[in-house]
Amino acid sequence: MKRLPKRGQYDSETIYKIVDEALICHVGFVDREVPFVIPTIHARIDDTVYFHGAVANRMMKHIESGNPVCITATLIDGIVFARSVFHHSMNYRSAMLFGKGRKVESAEEKNAALFAVSEHIAKGRWDEARIPSPKEMDATLVVAVDIESASAKVRTGPAIDDEEDYSLPVWAGVMPIQLQFMQPERDERLAGDITVPEYIKQYKR
Amino acid sequence: MKRLPKRGQYDSETIYKIVDEALICHVGFVDREVPFVIPTIHARIDDTVYFHGAVANRMMKHIESGNPVCITATLIDGIVFARSVFHHSMNYRSAMLFGKGRKVESAEEKNAALFAVSEHIAKGRWDEARIPSPKEMDATLVVAVDIESASAKVRTGPAIDDEEDYSLPVWAGVMPIQLQFMQPERDERLAGDITVPEYIKQYKR
Repeated sequence: MKRLPKRGQYDSETIYKIVDEALICHVGFVDREVPFVIPTIHARIDDTVYFHGAVANRMMKHIESGNPVCITATLIDGIVFARSVFHHSMNYRSAMLFGKGRKVESAEEKNAALFAVSEHIAKGRWDEARIPSPKEMDATLVVAVDIESASAKVRTGPAIDDEEDYSLPVWAGVMPIQLQFMQPERDERLAGDITVPEYIKQYKR
Repeated sequence: MKRLPKRGQYDSETIYKIVDEALICHVGFVDREVPFVIPTIHARIDDTVYFHGAVANRMMKHIESGNPVCITATLIDGIVFARSVFHHSMNYRSAMLFGKGRKVESAEEKNAALFAVSEHIAKGRWDEARIPSPKEMDATLVVAVDIESASAKVRTGPAIDDEEDYSLPVWAGVMPIQLQFMQPERDERLAGDITVPEYIKQYKR
């Protein structure tokens, strides 16, 4: 995945667009020299990425204590079928962010972070669902990673085969891939005649 | 994501099914105490996960040198909309594998690994596309991680709200998510009348 020149050079606008479009990210941290990679929901405000979790959560405790963190967000856009096995590839966009963790202490920042996480999952949901009680806020740990450096990698476009392979009788092309958000399944205990909100019915990222 | 009991206890059959279904995984490693998380294509044979890349690839070099590696494969199955913001969740399956890397030296294992990677992306492709030449084999580094320990986390099912929230007039339910493999786009330089092979037309994971 590294043959195209400049695949790793992007500005923060491009990088953050990837971070925001990704529903989840993968967080890497080091514990006694062993790497851990955990999938988790995130939200970004400016140059800070927020995570929330239970107070006892291992990853959260680790981020909270100020250790270096790597946050990777990946979007898969397609499989690139080349005429040769060697030149098969993926079209994708991925962002890698580095920073150190901290616990979010102020009620204001904590509230803003939880709102951002909620909006990241489904814009409009915070205004409709019951918002967190003081007790729930206490049970929720919010941590922040202030981004110190970031990069992105993007591959787009068709297969690039060796010139002499183009005449081979092998199908080549790109199969696009996207996340499909399907018909919402109504909760069995839903009260009476509540219909699916528009922001869920027309969900996209 | 940690309220359901036993969410982290699974046998290797369940864990490997997640690894195999995932098109890509995220690989974590440590370089000078800093964690890195890289999205990459993988393939599994028994208790070993293989990666391939250019000889100069940083991640590959790192895995090759025997350092501890974390391999995480994640499948997103849905967004769980609860009546309260606090109980929103994701349905997902994720597997986390730990082991140490090594370079694949023997031609036999290297060939088996590259075949497995190709089959992992698209079963049947190896038999149709031009297979790697000796020169391409030399330019490709294959590394292996023999799995020493592994775990999985799985969440399924509906939202679990607080009892007193069930009467709220808020829509709740699950929006299923899956990868959508779309109509393949034919390469512009494709020779004459080659049609899309069945294994691509009917692609699924």
